[in-house]
Amino acid sequence: MTHKKSIGIDIGGTKICGALIVEGGNILKSVKVDTPQGEASDTAHVVSGVIKEIISNDVVGIGLGVPGWVDHEKGTIYNTPNLSLSGFDLRGAIHDKFNLPVFIDNDANLAVLAEHSFGMAKDYKNVIGLTVGTGIGGGIILNGKVYRGVTGTGAEIGHMVVQPNGPKCGCGSSGCLDVMASGTGLIRAAKERINKGKESQILKLANGNIENIQGPMITKAAENGDKLAKECFDEVGFWLGIGINNLINICNPEMIILGGGVAGTGDLIMDPVRKVILERTISPNKDVCKIVISKLGNEAGMLGAGALVFESSKVSHNN
Amino acid sequence: MTHKKSIGIDIGGTKICGALIVEGGNILKSVKVDTPQGEASDTAHVVSGVIKEIISNDVVGIGLGVPGWVDHEKGTIYNTPNLSLSGFDLRGAIHDKFNLPVFIDNDANLAVLAEHSFGMAKDYKNVIGLTVGTGIGGGIILNGKVYRGVTGTGAEIGHMVVQPNGPKCGCGSSGCLDVMASGTGLIRAAKERINKGKESQILKLANGNIENIQGPMITKAAENGDKLAKECFDEVGFWLGIGINNLINICNPEMIILGGGVAGTGDLIMDPVRKVILERTISPNKDVCKIVISKLGNEAGMLGAGALVFESSKVSHNN
Repeated sequence: MTHKKSIGIDIGGTKICGALIVEGGNILKSVKVDTPQGEASDTAHVVSGVIKEIISNDVVGIGLGVPGWVDHEKGTIYNTPNLSLSGFDLRGAIHDKFNLPVFIDNDANLAVLAEHSFGMAKDYKNVIGLTVGTGIGGGIILNGKVYRGVTGTGAEIGHMVVQPNGPKCGCGSSGCLDVMASGTGLIRAAKERINKGKESQILKLANGNIENIQGPMITKAAENGDKLAKECFDEVGFWLGIGINNLINICNPEMIILGGGVAGTGDLIMDPVRKVILERTISPNKDVCKIVISKLGNEAGMLGAGALVFESSKVSHNN
Repeated sequence: MTHKKSIGIDIGGTKICGALIVEGGNILKSVKVDTPQGEASDTAHVVSGVIKEIISNDVVGIGLGVPGWVDHEKGTIYNTPNLSLSGFDLRGAIHDKFNLPVFIDNDANLAVLAEHSFGMAKDYKNVIGLTVGTGIGGGIILNGKVYRGVTGTGAEIGHMVVQPNGPKCGCGSSGCLDVMASGTGLIRAAKERINKGKESQILKLANGNIENIQGPMITKAAENGDKLAKECFDEVGFWLGIGINNLINICNPEMIILGGGVAGTGDLIMDPVRKVILERTISPNKDVCKIVISKLGNEAGMLGAGALVFESSKVSHNN
């Protein structure tokens, strides 16, 4: 018996990762390259190169994950804020080169699909995934399937407004979860405090230059017991908690699964999140919803792109 | 050819309404009585009386709508804040009396089901309903079916937090849509302004006593061009807009349908809502989502309860 194989490509703002994946979720080969900073056609060219390196002749299809608003069905890329792919027919370009079924989706939809196919959400039918990194991406599994909405651009959980008077968001709104509860929010919280003259190890870790502050420095300081750094996590965790409260009250899922760098800090971010849920979220919704941190790490994107092929592919195959 | 008939009962905090409904949505008979302010068994008794007045021998089932958190499948009433039905087996009590299939659900789920079965949402598969009255109820139709979540207590859109430091909500949280964007929010906005000594016709309409202020007085004053009253609608409409923005970004529905007294004020509340959507919501989500005001009015609850029977009933029937 042979298992189906697929190619999963995760196109990020800085890296493009590709993997050859077996239907059970094993990665047979993988490649990581820099994302070109030029035209969309350059990106397509680099993606093709990645595919060529890992493809085998029994691959049934190729899945592409893109950080932006994508219509999975039509293949349209509406908007990729950190990448020049808006409006480009990437699915068509890749299909022309390899003559295989090609599927495309938002990267956060694919992250939750990976959890549902191969990860901690495997046994659950109603799951919400949040990728909490520089920004916030969201994906929703309802009744065992990715929920994409009418134009495929649903699950834009990062653009839930939680503080209408908050900082400007890249989407044009302000106070979105994307700017309040992300790595960006964490850095802003630290800068604001340090600019007020408050003491923190963070500044030292940034070589004395406030503009150098990055998320991992705040994490390191917090782990060292730095009070200001902990306050930043409490603030960002509060907003993330408000967002998760809203999702649990509205969607009543079995599981919320968090991935991305900020989620990877564990209790630092989760303690304030849990406090909000305990204090605010309605029962029985909060009692039945597990809130967990992904174990798939950086592979979630590729695995989800590969899973998209298995989920979507109508190709008949001996197995 | 005979059409199926059902009984739809809408149990509210002050009134219980019942109707004999034909499958197409026509109401053949209806009754309205006061909700008893005593024990749950009194309410069950009054509901039975209403059913007896309107029942015919070809009714296939009874639908019950309850203002609170209900597990539609199990029939459990978790919590009815404005009614003493929490924990009471109302479905069982009614079934025992009439020996017919009995179905129960949250009233806002039923309002959107009514729109989807008989109203403006008839031709749409992904629809969100908001009942904007004293509080805010929500119902969600996804892929043509009521989406209830894992414990049946999903779609609690009224308990989406939009202003974490806002006024206390009955659910234990604060700044929920339920207190920010409802009739309650409208009255609070008026009182705050008048307490600051600002001029308004509203106080006159309330016979000079600020404690007498009710929603319709604010509506009347606003329609008369009262500046303060219009500001109140702008404030409440802003918060409703934030809530709707979040729903459109997350759920990407084809239609948002608004019912209830506050929605019935039309452009007064809708102008500020539309402004928020125009300024904040992502495309293409906002471009494909119709935002409309229900035409079913107070009948939505009964019609939805009746539709629940048709949707759920497995009774075979000559038709």
